[in-house]
Amino acid sequence: MPQWFSGYQPIIAVPIGDRGLQYGDGLFETVAVRNGRIRLWALHEDRLLTSCRRIGIQTEHLHDLYNQLDAALQASGNRNANCLTKVIVTRGQGPRGYRPPDDCPPSVYVGIFDHIPCPDMLYTRGIDIRICNTRLSSQPHTAGMKLLSRIEQILARSEWNDSNISEGIMLDQSDDIVCGTMSNVFMATEHGLMTPELVSAGVAGVMRRHIISIAEQNGIPVEVKQIPATEIAGASEFFVCNSQIGIWPVSRCGHRSFGARPITDKLRRLLRFSGVIEGPA
Amino acid sequence: MPQWFSGYQPIIAVPIGDRGLQYGDGLFETVAVRNGRIRLWALHEDRLLTSCRRIGIQTEHLHDLYNQLDAALQASGNRNANCLTKVIVTRGQGPRGYRPPDDCPPSVYVGIFDHIPCPDMLYTRGIDIRICNTRLSSQPHTAGMKLLSRIEQILARSEWNDSNISEGIMLDQSDDIVCGTMSNVFMATEHGLMTPELVSAGVAGVMRRHIISIAEQNGIPVEVKQIPATEIAGASEFFVCNSQIGIWPVSRCGHRSFGARPITDKLRRLLRFSGVIEGPA
Repeated sequence: MPQWFSGYQPIIAVPIGDRGLQYGDGLFETVAVRNGRIRLWALHEDRLLTSCRRIGIQTEHLHDLYNQLDAALQASGNRNANCLTKVIVTRGQGPRGYRPPDDCPPSVYVGIFDHIPCPDMLYTRGIDIRICNTRLSSQPHTAGMKLLSRIEQILARSEWNDSNISEGIMLDQSDDIVCGTMSNVFMATEHGLMTPELVSAGVAGVMRRHIISIAEQNGIPVEVKQIPATEIAGASEFFVCNSQIGIWPVSRCGHRSFGARPITDKLRRLLRFSGVIEGPA
Repeated sequence: MPQWFSGYQPIIAVPIGDRGLQYGDGLFETVAVRNGRIRLWALHEDRLLTSCRRIGIQTEHLHDLYNQLDAALQASGNRNANCLTKVIVTRGQGPRGYRPPDDCPPSVYVGIFDHIPCPDMLYTRGIDIRICNTRLSSQPHTAGMKLLSRIEQILARSEWNDSNISEGIMLDQSDDIVCGTMSNVFMATEHGLMTPELVSAGVAGVMRRHIISIAEQNGIPVEVKQIPATEIAGASEFFVCNSQIGIWPVSRCGHRSFGARPITDKLRRLLRFSGVIEGPA
Protein backbone atom coordinates (compact mmCIF):
# COMPACT_ATOMS: atom_id res chain seq x y z
CA MET A 1 0.00 0.00 0.00
CA PRO A 2 1.29 3.46 -0.79
CA GLN A 3 1.89 5.92 2.00
CA TRP A 4 0.82 9.53 1.53
CA PHE A 5 1.94 12.71 3.22
CA SER A 6 0.91 16.34 3.24
CA GLY A 7 2.71 19.13 5.02
CA TYR A 8 5.07 16.57 6.58
CA GLN A 9 2.14 14.60 8.08
CA PRO A 10 0.85 11.16 7.03
CA ILE A 11 -2.59 11.35 5.41
CA ILE A 12 -5.09 8.93 3.93
CA ALA A 13 -7.56 11.45 2.55
CA VAL A 14 -7.76 14.93 1.06
CA PRO A 15 -10.29 17.68 1.81
CA ILE A 16 -13.24 17.23 -0.52
CA GLY A 17 -13.14 20.91 -1.42
CA ASP A 18 -9.69 20.53 -2.98
CA ARG A 19 -9.85 21.84 -6.53
CA GLY A 20 -7.72 18.89 -7.60
CA LEU A 21 -10.75 16.66 -7.07
CA GLN A 22 -13.47 19.19 -7.86
CA TYR A 23 -12.00 20.41 -11.16
CA GLY A 24 -8.88 18.40 -11.98
CA ASP A 25 -7.10 21.66 -11.15
CA GLY A 26 -3.58 20.49 -10.50
CA LEU A 27 -0.47 18.71 -11.69
CA PHE A 28 1.68 15.79 -10.72
CA GLU A 29 5.13 14.32 -11.07
CA THR A 30 6.12 10.68 -10.82
CA VAL A 31 9.63 10.63 -9.45
CA ALA A 32 11.96 7.63 -9.21
CA VAL A 33 14.09 7.10 -6.12
CA ARG A 34 17.05 4.75 -6.56
CA ASN A 35 19.37 3.87 -3.68
CA GLY A 36 17.98 6.85 -1.87
CA ARG A 37 18.71 9.27 -4.70
CA ILE A 38 15.76 11.36 -5.94
CA ARG A 39 16.43 10.99 -9.62
CA LEU A 40 16.23 13.91 -12.06
CA TRP A 41 14.65 16.04 -9.35
CA ALA A 42 15.75 19.32 -10.89
CA LEU A 43 13.92 18.46 -14.11
CA HIS A 44 10.78 17.35 -12.26
CA GLU A 45 10.72 20.50 -10.15
CA ASP A 46 11.32 22.69 -13.17
CA ARG A 47 8.44 21.16 -15.14
CA LEU A 48 6.12 21.33 -12.14
CA LEU A 49 6.83 24.96 -11.28
CA THR A 50 6.82 26.06 -14.92
CA SER A 51 3.44 24.37 -15.38
CA CYS A 52 2.08 25.98 -12.22
CA ARG A 53 3.03 29.39 -13.55
CA ARG A 54 1.44 28.68 -16.92
CA ILE A 55 -1.95 27.98 -15.31
CA GLY A 56 -1.64 30.48 -12.47
CA ILE A 57 -1.11 28.16 -9.50
CA GLN A 58 0.74 30.16 -6.83
CA THR A 59 4.36 29.01 -6.62
CA GLU A 60 5.58 31.12 -3.70
CA HIS A 61 4.46 28.38 -1.30
CA LEU A 62 6.26 25.65 -3.26
CA HIS A 63 9.85 26.36 -2.29
CA ASP A 64 10.21 23.29 -0.09
CA LEU A 65 8.93 20.54 -2.37
CA TYR A 66 12.26 18.74 -2.13
CA ASN A 67 12.14 18.88 1.66
CA GLN A 68 8.59 17.56 1.71
CA LEU A 69 9.55 14.69 -0.56
CA ASP A 70 12.66 14.01 1.51
CA ALA A 71 10.62 13.99 4.74
CA ALA A 72 8.05 11.64 3.23
CA LEU A 73 10.83 9.26 2.20
CA GLN A 74 12.26 9.35 5.73
CA ALA A 75 8.89 8.87 7.40
CA SER A 76 7.96 5.98 5.13
CA GLY A 77 11.21 4.17 5.82
CA ASN A 78 12.27 4.46 2.17
CA ARG A 79 14.95 7.12 2.42
CA ASN A 80 17.70 4.80 1.22
CA ALA A 81 15.65 2.40 -0.83
CA ASN A 82 14.34 2.08 -4.36
CA CYS A 83 10.85 3.40 -4.62
CA LEU A 84 8.51 5.40 -6.73
CA THR A 85 7.08 8.69 -5.55
CA LYS A 86 4.26 10.84 -6.75
CA VAL A 87 4.10 14.55 -6.01
CA ILE A 88 0.68 16.11 -6.54
CA VAL A 89 0.27 19.88 -6.49
CA THR A 90 -3.28 21.20 -6.70
CA ARG A 91 -4.39 24.82 -6.81
CA GLY A 92 -5.73 24.36 -3.29
CA GLN A 93 -9.17 24.74 -1.77
CA GLY A 94 -11.77 27.30 -2.57
CA PRO A 95 -15.48 27.98 -2.91
CA ARG A 96 -17.52 26.54 -5.77
CA GLY A 97 -16.86 28.04 -9.19
CA TYR A 98 -14.19 27.74 -11.86
CA ARG A 99 -12.56 31.08 -11.15
CA PRO A 100 -9.57 30.51 -8.84
CA PRO A 101 -9.73 32.48 -5.58
CA ASP A 102 -7.43 35.49 -5.54
CA ASP A 103 -5.31 34.04 -2.76
CA CYS A 104 -5.20 30.29 -3.04
CA PRO A 105 -2.24 28.50 -1.46
CA PRO A 106 -1.67 25.23 -3.34
CA SER A 107 -1.96 21.81 -1.72
CA VAL A 108 0.93 19.34 -1.92
CA TYR A 109 0.48 15.60 -1.53
CA VAL A 110 3.41 13.19 -1.62
CA GLY A 111 2.88 9.48 -2.20
CA ILE A 112 5.49 6.76 -1.66
CA PHE A 113 5.01 3.53 -3.62
CA ASP A 114 6.94 0.30 -3.72
CA HIS A 115 9.44 -0.06 -6.54
CA ILE A 116 8.38 -2.88 -8.83
CA PRO A 117 11.24 -3.54 -11.25
CA CYS A 118 10.27 -4.22 -14.85
CA PRO A 119 11.18 -7.65 -16.27
CA ASP A 120 14.62 -7.61 -17.93
CA MET A 121 13.05 -8.88 -21.15
CA LEU A 122 11.36 -5.55 -21.74
CA TYR A 123 14.84 -4.03 -22.01
CA THR A 124 16.61 -6.86 -23.83
CA ARG A 125 14.01 -8.25 -26.21
CA GLY A 126 12.13 -4.96 -26.34
CA ILE A 127 8.40 -4.34 -26.18
CA ASP A 128 5.44 -4.71 -28.49
CA ILE A 129 3.32 -1.60 -28.85
CA ARG A 130 0.12 -0.60 -30.57
CA ILE A 131 -1.33 2.57 -32.05
CA CYS A 132 -4.31 3.72 -29.96
CA ASN A 133 -7.62 4.70 -31.49
CA THR A 134 -8.14 7.46 -28.93
CA ARG A 135 -6.68 10.64 -30.37
CA LEU A 136 -5.23 13.40 -28.20
CA SER A 137 -6.94 16.75 -28.40
CA SER A 138 -5.01 19.89 -29.23
CA GLN A 139 -4.62 22.45 -26.45
CA PRO A 140 -1.53 24.68 -26.72
CA HIS A 141 -2.30 26.31 -23.33
CA THR A 142 -1.58 23.08 -21.48
CA ALA A 143 0.57 21.09 -23.94
CA GLY A 144 3.64 19.60 -22.29
CA MET A 145 2.19 19.77 -18.78
CA LYS A 146 1.42 16.77 -16.57
CA LEU A 147 -2.10 17.81 -15.56
CA LEU A 148 -4.08 15.69 -13.13
CA SER A 149 -6.69 15.27 -15.87
CA ARG A 150 -5.77 12.08 -17.73
CA ILE A 151 -9.05 10.96 -19.23
CA GLU A 152 -7.58 10.63 -22.73
CA GLN A 153 -4.79 8.39 -21.45
CA ILE A 154 -7.32 6.36 -19.45
CA LEU A 155 -9.47 5.81 -22.53
CA ALA A 156 -6.42 4.91 -24.61
CA ARG A 157 -5.07 2.50 -21.99
CA SER A 158 -8.52 0.89 -21.76
CA GLU A 159 -8.37 -0.08 -25.41
CA TRP A 160 -6.32 -3.22 -24.92
CA ASN A 161 -6.13 -6.08 -22.50
CA ASP A 162 -3.30 -8.07 -24.06
CA SER A 163 -0.42 -8.26 -21.59
CA ASN A 164 2.00 -8.75 -24.50
CA ILE A 165 1.37 -5.15 -25.51
CA SER A 166 3.36 -2.95 -23.15
CA GLU A 167 2.44 0.49 -24.41
CA GLY A 168 0.08 2.31 -26.73
CA ILE A 169 1.12 5.20 -28.94
CA MET A 170 -1.22 8.16 -29.10
CA LEU A 171 -1.67 10.29 -32.19
CA ASP A 172 -3.25 13.71 -32.45
CA GLN A 173 -6.24 14.43 -34.65
CA SER A 174 -3.94 15.08 -37.62
CA ASP A 175 -2.40 11.60 -37.26
CA ASP A 176 0.87 12.96 -35.96
CA ILE A 177 2.60 11.01 -33.19
CA VAL A 178 2.45 12.64 -29.75
CA CYS A 179 3.52 10.16 -27.08
CA GLY A 180 2.71 6.87 -25.38
CA THR A 181 -0.06 6.60 -22.80
CA MET A 182 2.61 6.78 -20.09
CA SER A 183 5.80 7.50 -22.00
CA ASN A 184 7.49 9.63 -24.62
CA VAL A 185 8.67 8.24 -27.93
CA PHE A 186 11.83 8.53 -29.98
CA MET A 187 12.66 7.15 -33.40
CA ALA A 188 16.04 6.81 -35.05
CA THR A 189 16.79 7.30 -38.73
CA GLU A 190 20.04 7.69 -40.63
CA HIS A 191 19.96 11.38 -39.56
CA GLY A 192 19.89 10.64 -35.84
CA LEU A 193 17.01 10.78 -33.36
CA MET A 194 13.66 12.44 -33.65
CA THR A 195 10.90 12.98 -31.11
CA PRO A 196 7.53 14.77 -31.35
CA GLU A 197 7.55 18.47 -30.55
CA LEU A 198 4.56 18.47 -28.10
CA VAL A 199 3.44 22.02 -28.88
CA SER A 200 -0.26 21.23 -28.91
CA ALA A 201 -0.59 18.00 -26.89
CA GLY A 202 1.37 15.50 -24.82
CA VAL A 203 3.48 15.51 -21.71
CA ALA A 204 7.04 16.78 -22.02
CA GLY A 205 8.62 14.01 -19.97
CA VAL A 206 11.66 14.60 -17.83
CA MET A 207 13.30 11.43 -19.18
CA ARG A 208 12.67 12.73 -22.71
CA ARG A 209 14.42 15.96 -21.77
CA HIS A 210 17.28 14.08 -20.13
CA ILE A 211 17.70 11.83 -23.17
CA ILE A 212 17.71 14.79 -25.58
CA SER A 213 20.40 16.34 -23.43
CA ILE A 214 22.69 13.34 -23.18
CA ALA A 215 22.20 12.45 -26.85
CA GLU A 216 23.28 15.90 -27.96
CA GLN A 217 26.23 15.88 -25.55
CA ASN A 218 27.36 12.65 -27.17
CA GLY A 219 27.11 13.64 -30.80
CA ILE A 220 23.72 12.12 -31.56
CA PRO A 221 21.62 14.81 -33.25
CA VAL A 222 18.01 15.08 -32.05
CA GLU A 223 15.29 16.64 -34.13
CA VAL A 224 12.25 17.79 -32.14
CA LYS A 225 9.53 18.05 -34.76
CA GLN A 226 6.13 17.14 -36.06
CA ILE A 227 6.19 13.40 -36.90
CA PRO A 228 3.37 11.87 -38.95
CA ALA A 229 2.49 8.32 -37.91
CA THR A 230 3.48 7.17 -41.39
CA GLU A 231 7.12 7.84 -40.50
CA ILE A 232 7.18 4.80 -38.22
CA ALA A 233 7.60 2.67 -41.35
CA GLY A 234 10.82 4.46 -42.27
CA ALA A 235 12.40 4.52 -38.81
CA SER A 236 15.30 2.16 -38.12
CA GLU A 237 14.80 2.20 -34.33
CA PHE A 238 11.97 3.11 -32.00
CA PHE A 239 11.94 3.41 -28.22
CA VAL A 240 9.74 4.73 -25.45
CA CYS A 241 10.93 6.27 -22.20
CA ASN A 242 9.77 7.64 -18.90
CA SER A 243 11.25 8.50 -15.55
CA GLN A 244 10.50 5.06 -14.07
CA ILE A 245 11.44 2.67 -16.85
CA GLY A 246 14.29 4.56 -18.46
CA ILE A 247 14.28 3.29 -22.06
CA TRP A 248 12.27 0.39 -23.47
CA PRO A 249 13.27 -0.50 -27.04
CA VAL A 250 10.32 -1.27 -29.30
CA SER A 251 10.59 -4.61 -31.07
CA ARG A 252 7.25 -4.48 -32.82
CA CYS A 253 4.62 -1.88 -33.66
CA GLY A 254 1.71 -3.47 -35.48
CA HIS A 255 3.19 -5.22 -38.53
CA ARG A 256 6.49 -3.36 -38.31
CA SER A 257 9.37 -5.17 -36.57
CA PHE A 258 12.52 -3.47 -35.41
CA GLY A 259 15.84 -5.36 -35.37
CA ALA A 260 19.32 -4.13 -34.50
CA ARG A 261 19.28 -0.93 -32.46
CA PRO A 262 22.73 0.61 -32.16
CA ILE A 263 21.51 4.09 -31.19
CA THR A 264 19.01 2.84 -28.60
CA ASP A 265 21.68 0.58 -27.06
CA LYS A 266 24.14 3.46 -26.96
CA LEU A 267 21.58 5.68 -25.26
CA ARG A 268 20.84 2.99 -22.67
CA ARG A 269 24.57 2.87 -21.88
CA LEU A 270 24.73 6.67 -21.69
CA LEU A 271 21.71 6.69 -19.37
CA ARG A 272 23.57 4.33 -17.05
CA PHE A 273 26.59 6.63 -17.05
CA SER A 274 24.20 9.45 -16.12
CA GLY A 275 22.84 7.44 -13.20
CA VAL A 276 19.61 6.13 -14.74
CA ILE A 277 20.05 2.43 -14.10
CA GLU A 278 16.99 0.54 -15.25
CA GLY A 279 17.13 -2.94 -16.74
CA PRO A 280 20.21 -5.08 -17.41
CA ALA A 281 23.41 -3.50 -18.70
CA MET B 1 -19.99 25.98 4.29
CA PRO B 2 -21.11 23.11 2.08
CA GLN B 3 -21.93 19.77 3.65
CA TRP B 4 -20.74 16.62 1.91
CA PHE B 5 -21.96 13.05 2.10
CA SER B 6 -20.86 9.69 0.79
CA GLY B 7 -22.76 6.44 1.15
CA TYR B 8 -25.31 8.24 3.35
CA GLN B 9 -22.59 9.42 5.79
CA PRO B 10 -21.28 12.96 6.29
CA ILE B 11 -17.69 13.35 5.07
CA ILE B 12 -15.12 16.10 4.91
CA ALA B 13 -12.47 14.28 2.89
CA VAL B 14 -12.05 11.69 0.16
CA PRO B 15 -9.56 8.79 0.02
CA ILE B 16 -6.40 10.05 -1.63
CA GLY B 17 -6.35 7.01 -3.93
CA ASP B 18 -9.63 8.06 -5.53
CA ARG B 19 -9.11 8.25 -9.27
CA GLY B 20 -11.19 11.41 -9.30
CA LEU B 21 -8.26 13.19 -7.64
CA GLN B 22 -5.43 11.13 -9.10
CA TYR B 23 -6.54 11.32 -12.74
CA GLY B 24 -9.63 13.56 -13.01
CA ASP B 25 -11.39 10.26 -13.70
CA GLY B 26 -14.99 11.15 -12.99
CA LEU B 27 -18.00 13.32 -13.67
CA PHE B 28 -20.30 15.66 -11.84
CA GLU B 29 -23.73 17.22 -11.93
CA THR B 30 -24.81 20.49 -10.36
CA VAL B 31 -28.44 20.06 -9.42
CA ALA B 32 -30.84 22.77 -8.26
CA VAL B 33 -33.28 22.11 -5.41
CA ARG B 34 -36.23 24.50 -5.18
CA ASN B 35 -38.85 24.22 -2.44
CA GLY B 36 -37.61 20.73 -1.82
CA ARG B 37 -37.97 19.64 -5.44
CA ILE B 38 -34.89 18.15 -7.08
CA ARG B 39 -35.20 19.93 -10.39
CA LEU B 40 -34.67 18.20 -13.74
CA TRP B 41 -33.32 15.14 -11.94
CA ALA B 42 -34.21 12.74 -14.74
CA LEU B 43 -32.09 14.76 -17.17
CA HIS B 44 -29.17 15.00 -14.74
CA GLU B 45 -29.26 11.28 -14.04
CA ASP B 46 -29.51 10.45 -17.72
CA ARG B 47 -26.48 12.56 -18.64
CA LEU B 48 -24.48 11.20 -15.73
CA LEU B 49 -25.18 7.54 -16.43
CA THR B 50 -24.80 7.95 -20.20
CA SER B 51 -21.43 9.63 -19.64
CA CYS B 52 -20.34 6.89 -17.23
CA ARG B 53 -21.09 4.27 -19.88
CA ARG B 54 -19.19 6.22 -22.52
CA ILE B 55 -15.99 6.18 -20.45
CA GLY B 56 -16.51 2.78 -18.87
CA ILE B 57 -17.38 3.75 -15.29
CA GLN B 58 -19.44 0.92 -13.82
CA THR B 59 -23.09 1.95 -13.52
CA GLU B 60 -24.54 -1.10 -11.80
CA HIS B 61 -23.70 0.45 -8.43
CA LEU B 62 -25.37 3.75 -9.31
CA HIS B 63 -29.03 2.79 -9.03
CA ASP B 64 -29.65 4.77 -5.85
CA LEU B 65 -28.22 8.17 -6.74
CA TYR B 66 -31.59 9.79 -6.14
CA ASN B 67 -31.83 8.19 -2.72
CA GLN B 68 -28.32 9.31 -1.82
CA LEU B 69 -29.13 12.86 -2.86
CA ASP B 70 -32.42 12.73 -1.00
CA ALA B 71 -30.73 11.45 2.16
CA ALA B 72 -28.06 14.15 1.95
CA LEU B 73 -30.77 16.80 1.66
CA GLN B 74 -32.53 15.35 4.71
CA ALA B 75 -29.36 15.07 6.76
CA SER B 76 -28.26 18.60 5.90
CA GLY B 77 -31.61 20.07 6.92
CA ASN B 78 -32.31 21.24 3.38
CA ARG B 79 -34.95 18.76 2.28
CA ASN B 80 -37.64 21.41 1.85
CA ALA B 81 -35.44 24.38 1.10
CA ASN B 82 -33.81 26.03 -1.87
CA CYS B 83 -30.27 24.85 -2.29
CA LEU B 84 -27.69 23.79 -4.77
CA THR B 85 -26.31 20.27 -4.84
CA LYS B 86 -23.34 18.71 -6.52
CA VAL B 87 -23.17 15.01 -7.28
CA ILE B 88 -19.69 13.72 -8.05
CA VAL B 89 -19.20 10.22 -9.44
CA THR B 90 -15.62 9.03 -9.81
CA ARG B 91 -14.43 5.73 -11.22
CA GLY B 92 -13.45 4.73 -7.69
CA GLN B 93 -10.19 3.74 -6.10
CA GLY B 94 -7.46 1.63 -7.60
CA PRO B 95 -3.74 1.07 -7.82
CA ARG B 96 -1.46 3.47 -9.68
CA GLY B 97 -1.75 3.43 -13.46
CA TYR B 98 -4.16 4.81 -16.03
CA ARG B 99 -5.78 1.50 -16.86
CA PRO B 100 -8.99 1.16 -14.80
CA PRO B 101 -9.09 -1.93 -12.56
CA ASP B 102 -11.35 -4.68 -13.93
CA ASP B 103 -13.73 -4.37 -11.02
CA CYS B 104 -13.90 -0.81 -9.81
CA PRO B 105 -17.02 0.29 -7.95
CA PRO B 106 -17.48 4.02 -8.46
CA SER B 107 -17.42 6.54 -5.62
CA VAL B 108 -20.31 8.94 -5.12
CA TYR B 109 -19.98 12.22 -3.24
CA VAL B 110 -22.94 14.53 -2.67
CA GLY B 111 -22.44 18.17 -1.69
CA ILE B 112 -25.15 20.49 -0.38
CA PHE B 113 -24.55 24.22 -0.86
CA ASP B 114 -26.54 27.28 0.12
CA HIS B 115 -28.76 28.75 -2.57
CA ILE B 116 -27.54 32.22 -3.47
CA PRO B 117 -30.18 33.85 -5.71
CA CYS B 118 -28.86 35.86 -8.63
CA PRO B 119 -29.70 39.59 -8.67
CA ASP B 120 -32.96 40.27 -10.55
CA MET B 121 -31.14 42.67 -12.84
CA LEU B 122 -29.32 39.79 -14.52
CA TYR B 123 -32.73 38.57 -15.70
CA THR B 124 -34.38 41.92 -16.44
CA ARG B 125 -31.58 44.07 -17.82
CA GLY B 126 -29.62 41.06 -19.05
CA ILE B 127 -25.91 40.37 -18.78
CA ASP B 128 -22.76 41.54 -20.46
CA ILE B 129 -20.53 38.79 -21.80
CA ARG B 130 -17.18 38.48 -23.48
CA ILE B 131 -15.52 36.12 -25.91
CA CYS B 132 -12.74 34.19 -24.16
CA ASN B 133 -9.28 33.81 -25.63
CA THR B 134 -8.92 30.26 -24.30
CA ARG B 135 -10.18 27.93 -27.01
CA LEU B 136 -11.78 24.58 -26.24
CA SER B 137 -9.98 21.53 -27.58
CA SER B 138 -11.76 19.02 -29.77
CA GLN B 139 -12.38 15.57 -28.25
CA PRO B 140 -15.39 13.69 -29.67
CA HIS B 141 -14.89 10.85 -27.13
CA THR B 142 -15.87 13.10 -24.23
CA ALA B 143 -17.81 15.94 -25.92
CA GLY B 144 -21.05 16.72 -24.13
CA MET B 145 -19.94 15.17 -20.83
CA LYS B 146 -19.44 17.04 -17.56
CA LEU B 147 -16.04 15.63 -16.71
CA LEU B 148 -14.33 16.59 -13.46
CA SER B 149 -11.48 18.01 -15.57
CA ARG B 150 -12.30 21.69 -16.09
CA ILE B 151 -8.90 23.23 -16.72
CA GLU B 152 -10.04 24.93 -19.93
CA GLN B 153 -12.98 26.55 -18.15
CA ILE B 154 -10.69 27.58 -15.29
CA LEU B 155 -8.26 29.26 -17.69
CA ALA B 156 -11.13 30.96 -19.53
CA ARG B 157 -12.76 32.16 -16.32
CA SER B 158 -9.38 33.50 -15.14
CA GLU B 159 -9.19 35.82 -18.13
CA TRP B 160 -11.35 38.58 -16.65
CA ASN B 161 -11.84 40.27 -13.32
CA ASP B 162 -14.55 42.78 -14.26
CA SER B 163 -17.65 42.03 -12.20
CA ASN B 164 -19.79 43.66 -14.90
CA ILE B 165 -18.99 40.72 -17.17
CA SER B 166 -21.16 37.81 -16.05
CA GLU B 167 -20.05 35.11 -18.46
CA GLY B 168 -17.44 34.30 -21.08
CA ILE B 169 -18.20 32.54 -24.34
CA MET B 170 -15.78 29.82 -25.41
CA LEU B 171 -14.99 29.05 -29.03
CA ASP B 172 -13.33 25.99 -30.45
CA GLN B 173 -10.14 26.12 -32.45
CA SER B 174 -12.11 26.74 -35.65
CA ASP B 175 -13.76 29.83 -34.10
CA ASP B 176 -17.12 28.14 -33.77
CA ILE B 177 -19.15 28.89 -30.64
CA VAL B 178 -19.28 26.02 -28.11
CA CYS B 179 -20.67 27.28 -24.79
CA GLY B 180 -20.10 29.63 -21.88
CA THR B 181 -17.59 28.82 -19.15
CA MET B 182 -20.51 27.63 -16.98
CA SER B 183 -23.49 27.79 -19.33
CA ASN B 184 -24.87 26.88 -22.72
CA VAL B 185 -25.74 29.47 -25.31
CA PHE B 186 -28.68 30.07 -27.62
CA MET B 187 -29.22 32.69 -30.28
CA ALA B 188 -32.41 33.72 -32.00
CA THR B 189 -32.80 34.74 -35.62
CA GLU B 190 -35.84 35.19 -37.83
CA HIS B 191 -35.81 31.38 -38.29
CA GLY B 192 -36.10 30.60 -34.57
CA LEU B 193 -33.48 29.44 -32.09
CA MET B 194 -30.08 27.96 -32.68
CA THR B 195 -27.56 26.39 -30.30
CA PRO B 196 -24.14 24.80 -30.90
CA GLU B 197 -24.16 21.07 -31.62
CA LEU B 198 -21.44 20.03 -29.09
CA VAL B 199 -20.16 17.06 -31.09
CA SER B 200 -16.50 17.75 -30.45
CA ALA B 201 -16.44 19.90 -27.29
CA GLY B 202 -18.62 21.44 -24.62
CA VAL B 203 -21.03 20.25 -21.97
CA ALA B 204 -24.53 19.28 -23.10
CA GLY B 205 -26.34 21.04 -20.28
CA VAL B 206 -29.58 19.72 -18.84
CA MET B 207 -31.15 23.21 -19.00
CA ARG B 208 -30.15 23.38 -22.69
CA ARG B 209 -31.90 20.07 -23.25
CA HIS B 210 -34.95 21.21 -21.30
CA ILE B 211 -35.13 24.48 -23.24
CA ILE B 212 -34.84 22.71 -26.59
CA SER B 213 -37.70 20.48 -25.50
CA ILE B 214 -40.08 23.21 -24.31
CA ALA B 215 -39.25 25.45 -27.28
CA GLU B 216 -40.15 22.72 -29.75
CA GLN B 217 -43.30 21.84 -27.81
CA ASN B 218 -44.34 25.49 -28.15
CA GLY B 219 -43.71 25.99 -31.83
CA ILE B 220 -40.30 27.62 -31.61
CA PRO B 221 -38.00 25.77 -34.01
CA VAL B 222 -34.49 24.98 -32.66
CA GLU B 223 -31.55 24.30 -34.92
CA VAL B 224 -28.70 22.41 -33.26
CA LYS B 225 -25.75 23.14 -35.50
CA GLN B 226 -22.25 24.44 -36.01
CA ILE B 227 -22.31 28.20 -35.29
CA PRO B 228 -19.33 30.37 -36.31
CA ALA B 229 -18.63 33.22 -33.88
CA THR B 230 -19.29 35.64 -36.72
CA GLU B 231 -22.99 34.73 -36.52
CA ILE B 232 -23.34 36.65 -33.24
CA ALA B 233 -23.50 39.83 -35.31
CA GLY B 234 -26.57 38.62 -37.17
CA ALA B 235 -28.48 37.23 -34.19
CA SER B 236 -31.48 39.19 -32.92
CA GLU B 237 -31.34 37.67 -29.41
CA PHE B 238 -28.75 35.86 -27.36
CA PHE B 239 -29.08 34.10 -24.02
CA VAL B 240 -27.13 31.75 -21.78
CA CYS B 241 -28.60 29.09 -19.52
CA ASN B 242 -27.72 26.52 -16.92
CA SER B 243 -29.52 24.44 -14.33
CA GLN B 244 -28.98 27.02 -11.57
CA ILE B 245 -29.68 30.31 -13.26
CA GLY B 246 -32.33 29.26 -15.76
CA ILE B 247 -32.01 31.84 -18.56
CA TRP B 248 -29.94 35.01 -18.53
CA PRO B 249 -30.60 37.26 -21.52
CA VAL B 250 -27.46 38.79 -23.02
CA SER B 251 -27.64 42.57 -23.34
CA ARG B 252 -24.13 43.09 -24.68
CA CYS B 253 -21.36 40.97 -26.20
CA GLY B 254 -18.32 43.11 -26.98
CA HIS B 255 -19.54 45.92 -29.23
CA ARG B 256 -22.82 44.20 -30.09
CA SER B 257 -25.89 45.23 -28.06
CA PHE B 258 -29.10 43.27 -27.97
CA GLY B 259 -32.45 45.06 -27.52
CA ALA B 260 -35.97 43.64 -27.53
CA ARG B 261 -36.08 39.89 -26.92
CA PRO B 262 -39.50 38.43 -27.56
CA ILE B 263 -38.30 34.83 -27.93
CA THR B 264 -36.10 34.91 -24.82
CA ASP B 265 -38.93 36.44 -22.79
CA LYS B 266 -41.35 33.81 -24.07
CA LEU B 267 -38.92 31.05 -23.13
CA ARG B 268 -38.49 32.47 -19.65
CA ARG B 269 -42.28 32.37 -19.22
CA LEU B 270 -42.37 28.80 -20.55
CA LEU B 271 -39.60 27.82 -18.14
CA ARG B 272 -41.72 29.11 -15.27
CA PHE B 273 -44.69 27.06 -16.45
CA SER B 274 -42.35 24.05 -16.48
CA GLY B 275 -41.31 24.75 -12.89
CA VAL B 276 -37.96 26.47 -13.47
CA ILE B 277 -38.54 29.64 -11.48
CA GLU B 278 -35.39 31.77 -11.50
CA GLY B 279 -35.48 35.55 -11.52
CA PRO B 280 -38.52 37.86 -11.59
CA ALA B 281 -41.55 36.96 -13.69
